[in-house]
Amino acid sequence: MRLVTIHEVARNAGVSIGTVSKVLNNQGQLRAETRLRVRAAAELLGFRPNDLARSLHRKRTFTIGLVSSDRFGRFSIPLLEGIEDALDSARVAVFLCKPTDDPAHERRHVESLLAKRVDGLIVTSRRTDPRPPLDTLGTSVPVIYAYAQTAGAGATCLLADDEGGGYLAGRHLVGLGRTRIAHITGPERFAAVRERRAGLSRALAGAQVPLDPRLASTGPWSEAWGREAVGRLLDAGPPFDAVFCGSDQIARGVADCLRERGLNVPDDVAIVGYDNWEIVAAATRPPLTTIDPCLHELGQAAASRLLAMIDGDHGPAATRHVVRLPCRLLVRASCGGGSSLKTADRAA
Amino acid sequence: MRLVTIHEVARNAGVSIGTVSKVLNNQGQLRAETRLRVRAAAELLGFRPNDLARSLHRKRTFTIGLVSSDRFGRFSIPLLEGIEDALDSARVAVFLCKPTDDPAHERRHVESLLAKRVDGLIVTSRRTDPRPPLDTLGTSVPVIYAYAQTAGAGATCLLADDEGGGYLAGRHLVGLGRTRIAHITGPERFAAVRERRAGLSRALAGAQVPLDPRLASTGPWSEAWGREAVGRLLDAGPPFDAVFCGSDQIARGVADCLRERGLNVPDDVAIVGYDNWEIVAAATRPPLTTIDPCLHELGQAAASRLLAMIDGDHGPAATRHVVRLPCRLLVRASCGGGSSLKTADRAA
Repeated sequence: MRLVTIHEVARNAGVSIGTVSKVLNNQGQLRAETRLRVRAAAELLGFRPNDLARSLHRKRTFTIGLVSSDRFGRFSIPLLEGIEDALDSARVAVFLCKPTDDPAHERRHVESLLAKRVDGLIVTSRRTDPRPPLDTLGTSVPVIYAYAQTAGAGATCLLADDEGGGYLAGRHLVGLGRTRIAHITGPERFAAVRERRAGLSRALAGAQVPLDPRLASTGPWSEAWGREAVGRLLDAGPPFDAVFCGSDQIARGVADCLRERGLNVPDDVAIVGYDNWEIVAAATRPPLTTIDPCLHELGQAAASRLLAMIDGDHGPAATRHVVRLPCRLLVRASCGGGSSLKTADRAA
Repeated sequence: MRLVTIHEVARNAGVSIGTVSKVLNNQGQLRAETRLRVRAAAELLGFRPNDLARSLHRKRTFTIGLVSSDRFGRFSIPLLEGIEDALDSARVAVFLCKPTDDPAHERRHVESLLAKRVDGLIVTSRRTDPRPPLDTLGTSVPVIYAYAQTAGAGATCLLADDEGGGYLAGRHLVGLGRTRIAHITGPERFAAVRERRAGLSRALAGAQVPLDPRLASTGPWSEAWGREAVGRLLDAGPPFDAVFCGSDQIARGVADCLRERGLNVPDDVAIVGYDNWEIVAAATRPPLTTIDPCLHELGQAAASRLLAMIDGDHGPAATRHVVRLPCRLLVRASCGGGSSLKTADRAA
């Protein structure tokens, strides 16, 4: 690649390299005529300042690294887009590492990023359960955990408010007059499962609507589980007029099974999903009302916070700092409008 | 971030900076004892070579930039993972840019990547139709188009072999004895739609099975279109015993509609999808036999080719170079095994 050097600009303008540097960095005392001549020469030759040289000078590279412990997927994409949004406007670029859940690979990625002198690191994951702290190999490079957390002291972790998301879903359903609310969700070992259920319980308790334990079931994060679980409730469970699902995939399975059993959504049973994974939520019949964890905003917030940390704002020292960002209820057709209460017995 | 400098290593070892550099780069003639002393000092102090300094020295940054004209999604993810695979082993890192289809934004991204002195650029897209050539702002930085193409002279473009994918699907279906093959696919304006159909036609012609134009229909890339299109064929079209779909999403809609109309897949109608988008293909009832465009391999190939170009292998000069990588047939349950021929009339 043929690139114009600062030497050529200096020669063309008839000044020293130091003078060119001062002009291009808006530093020092120089005559207006000199500034103009240097800028004209730079423009004429198509000179582009070299970030590398600038980096060595300023001890910053204007780059950050993204370390992920899981494959790029539907959670990391909106997060990544949010991160890009925030960094792009700050003219900071992101180095991506191949996702890995192998600590040795992760260590090698961090080594490689540190060799590139990144100014900071963002750690992300597909699960929000605590992970081991990132080993920064003895350096004090700023690190932020986004849609990921660690128990280490001093860690800054940004998470979606899963409890709040469950609360929003529950409040919406009781607000629509539903009183027999089932909850079909993912595996119990996920913190997100326990937190969303806690939020649902809080909303129901506030409306004096009990959460019947016979209507709550956990299983895999899949459509097939949604179909199976709601089928079991129809066959042998108590009646219900709504289902809050732990994911849009589960909700899609629930909607398919209810339709195939001749029930109407939302008239007979209202459904709320979780994730706002649009390709699933919008394709479900009817399209899903769902909780949006706002991962784009979470990515933006994480990147902005990291930039502040790079600028020296480390927050309360040695304090683990966990911030939960609010979720959002997104209303589509699966809950109906102000639909009336129906508790028709659908048990076998 | 506190990092050990080459100066400290030199001081500790009692040698010059030049000597440290020679040892760490395995260059020059030095006594074994000196090499050992320098390596011991570097180890003791935890010295990590600075890629930035190395870059200025070697005129290479060991970074490349990825420019995408579409949101990160199911096509760019496997591609990105393949790129990471190839670059990771070459210890080259990827800068990611926020996807954009706005030429002004793209130009700004390229400017910013060139300021970071990337060694090369990968351009990708969600559509494989020709796009304008990337403006590299007068530089001769190597560029490769991956799952994207441009008509510009000298461009190197790696694409999936859509015609070959269509052929694989058709050959599989006629091999199973199907003779009335419908084709429900995406919008006619997509090159991929036309090429996959051409491949299907070639396979059918080879088996003396005609492609009935009344059984071919184009529409949106959606489940809803798959349901609608196959519903219309059942209501008013000629009989058919197989459907080759232009995407897994369309195939899912087709499978849902057939089941809801009381038809059995694969006994009554076999289905082949396209994309091997596992979250859809595996969740369909029954799971979809589909064409895998092997985007991971395409990403690996693109990154390897770019590394070769960076090393000076530019291929035939000024020749547009389009390489089509083979697709793969992935057999699941939606086609059955060696199922017998059935052409029961399902028209209204």
